[in-house]
Amino acid sequence: MPMMTSLSGFPEFTPEEKILEDELISRLTKVFELHGFSHLETRAIEPLSELERKGETSKEVYVLSRLQDKEGKEDRKNGLHFDLTVPLARYVLENSHLLRFPFKRYQIQKVWRGERPQEGRFREFVQADIDMVAAETLPPQFEIEAPLIMAQALDSLPIPTPVVHVNSRKILQGVCNALGIAHVEGVLQVIDKHDKVSPDDFAGMLSELGLDTSQVQTLVNLADICGADESVIQQVRDLGLQDDLLEEGLEDVARMLRSVPDHEKGNVVADFKIARGLDYYTGMVYETFITGAESYGSICSGGRYDNLVSQGKRHFPGVGMSIGLTRLISIILANDWAKVSRQVPTCVLVAVDSEETRGQAENVAWKLRARGINTEVSPTAAKYGKQIKYAVTRGIPYVWFVESGEVKNLINETQESAQADTFTPAPDLLKPQVIANYE
Amino acid sequence: MPMMTSLSGFPEFTPEEKILEDELISRLTKVFELHGFSHLETRAIEPLSELERKGETSKEVYVLSRLQDKEGKEDRKNGLHFDLTVPLARYVLENSHLLRFPFKRYQIQKVWRGERPQEGRFREFVQADIDMVAAETLPPQFEIEAPLIMAQALDSLPIPTPVVHVNSRKILQGVCNALGIAHVEGVLQVIDKHDKVSPDDFAGMLSELGLDTSQVQTLVNLADICGADESVIQQVRDLGLQDDLLEEGLEDVARMLRSVPDHEKGNVVADFKIARGLDYYTGMVYETFITGAESYGSICSGGRYDNLVSQGKRHFPGVGMSIGLTRLISIILANDWAKVSRQVPTCVLVAVDSEETRGQAENVAWKLRARGINTEVSPTAAKYGKQIKYAVTRGIPYVWFVESGEVKNLINETQESAQADTFTPAPDLLKPQVIANYE
Repeated sequence: MPMMTSLSGFPEFTPEEKILEDELISRLTKVFELHGFSHLETRAIEPLSELERKGETSKEVYVLSRLQDKEGKEDRKNGLHFDLTVPLARYVLENSHLLRFPFKRYQIQKVWRGERPQEGRFREFVQADIDMVAAETLPPQFEIEAPLIMAQALDSLPIPTPVVHVNSRKILQGVCNALGIAHVEGVLQVIDKHDKVSPDDFAGMLSELGLDTSQVQTLVNLADICGADESVIQQVRDLGLQDDLLEEGLEDVARMLRSVPDHEKGNVVADFKIARGLDYYTGMVYETFITGAESYGSICSGGRYDNLVSQGKRHFPGVGMSIGLTRLISIILANDWAKVSRQVPTCVLVAVDSEETRGQAENVAWKLRARGINTEVSPTAAKYGKQIKYAVTRGIPYVWFVESGEVKNLINETQESAQADTFTPAPDLLKPQVIANYE
Repeated sequence: MPMMTSLSGFPEFTPEEKILEDELISRLTKVFELHGFSHLETRAIEPLSELERKGETSKEVYVLSRLQDKEGKEDRKNGLHFDLTVPLARYVLENSHLLRFPFKRYQIQKVWRGERPQEGRFREFVQADIDMVAAETLPPQFEIEAPLIMAQALDSLPIPTPVVHVNSRKILQGVCNALGIAHVEGVLQVIDKHDKVSPDDFAGMLSELGLDTSQVQTLVNLADICGADESVIQQVRDLGLQDDLLEEGLEDVARMLRSVPDHEKGNVVADFKIARGLDYYTGMVYETFITGAESYGSICSGGRYDNLVSQGKRHFPGVGMSIGLTRLISIILANDWAKVSRQVPTCVLVAVDSEETRGQAENVAWKLRARGINTEVSPTAAKYGKQIKYAVTRGIPYVWFVESGEVKNLINETQESAQADTFTPAPDLLKPQVIANYE
């Protein structure tokens, strides 16, 4: 079933799709908490001054006015947040006296962007972020932990193997230094487009920046180096460039590759064309692709930032990654990668023989609920056939008949006596299940 | 710790308070699903035409513009929803072909109101709603089930006994009919203010509507009748009024009182001064008070509506109730009714002896996580005392020492050998706990 968007760019889920989203959020939450991240939620609204700190994206902001504020006193002073990083920066600075550093938090919330809606672009969507923010000095292993945690989180979802691609801004900067390229920002922007253009166009765009053939060729070669094995480090060294920052970045990525635990081998690779365009990153940068579905682009990106969270002399360097959850769900639905076993939480429908005996059905239902079994009582005392249909059309697996004291399993078509104090549903029928549906 | 509001009316929680909110949402969700309600989430943004359907509250709407939309093409056409009922009505009408009726859904989302912020009033806050919507005919027991479900849900929260007060608009309308009062809306508005004014002022306000002494006295007497026992029905009959609608309403409330299961006795009472002001209710109406903290006003209100969800000839009567969750949490925090056992999900901190042996600490951590134990590795290889302090200040109960193969329980100050494959934390230390803290 496709997501519904009666207002262009503002998707809504059916109850069945919402079960999928809830399951995804629950699995992500579990992994984030396994790593000690605290749940944070910030208000949806920020002063425009905060929202405009990041520059480029400010054009997409939704600003707020009060309908009855005729004098316009509060007009357009505040807007809806367009990501969860800017609010985190504001929250950390505002509450640094209450927080313990390093501060590790996850945040799963809607964000809004007034972009032109298009394929896979939404104006209201959910992001799932993790960030680790330190006071003054960021422990270096946080840059290694972030992609390992996200790889584990994404691997718990019903999608083919996710692979986090890691690079370091130090490497890109160092390569530019060694090649004598001053206009690093322009190079980052072109490298960021590598996968969206042909090899010829990629080289052409670099030439247009004023780079000579040898500089272009070195960058083309660099962008092609990618792999999980530490040999990729040597491949970069073989480009024959000398620069301290480049060496530092290569050491970081090499340590990263050595730190991947056995159960995540292949989920994290070095990839030297990852640049993250104009963003505020200063160290490692990350993008994540689904194996066999790389054309959808990155589903989870981020990096290290040194200057985003700072005020006067206080600095809180951090590293974070963000999943575009709504977009990821739209990809899962489009590819039919997950099945939801039913559309309601209900496990048992208690049939009603007559309105006079509804109380007996209610008694059974309260007993089942007390034992954790999601139970509805039939809204009408219609013929059994009609009540069974109520269950069938919703995927409710059991119908309980009070008079006969029997329960019918609609999945395997069996019927047997049962007591409300002892009845135990099949484990896979207790709650709606999300079942992976791909090779 | 108080909630933080650096932007007036937009509260934010500390990580510790967020654990409380998450626990409350989890408990409410559990009860709603026990009764077969599906989780729904609607977009935050609605066309102004939808938001203005309800009349009165439209003045509080935040309208949206795009910062860069210089031509104002999309200016002020859409706004943020101010409740979850109007979006439900729109969602049901729009997707009636996809939904199964009766449709039972819960919805726990932020809403926004541009009201002047004041004690306990927020501009951004979370509501937790249940609604049951039927096609054409609402099964009568739904009006009985709604308060029973909410009573169970609220009773699962760390608050003193919640009591749902039930009345029927039919009774209030019927009484006015019998007394020959035409201006029923005015009477509803005054009755709605009963608990906020003195008895004399209450009678005075009724007089000001043009009611004579006998009419006023009858309404004063009616408003004083309240109780869980079916004898309250007789007390209303003893007022000596004759009207078919009144009788119908009394039958509804009587059946309601008889349906309260033993485990909820006292959690649901009839209370004939519940009116719900200008709202769109047509049958039963509900308000909920916390025993001993009634002065905070109703924490959960609602009622039956026949005409909210309709389009042309199609009618979807429904019944619903809404918890003001952010307000309820502010009450819990102000009264210190709940304690959170720690501020992070982390159960075990694995100490690091040196950066060279960090890998061994990571190995222990991955093993513990694989067994569902939330584990952090110390960010620095500082002296043990400093690493233990990292745990103590966050409330992390266990510190793991790799070299000695021992784990220290910081709560009871014991230390013993442990294996990552078999170590089992005390059940109450595995996750942060929310502990009720009232008589």
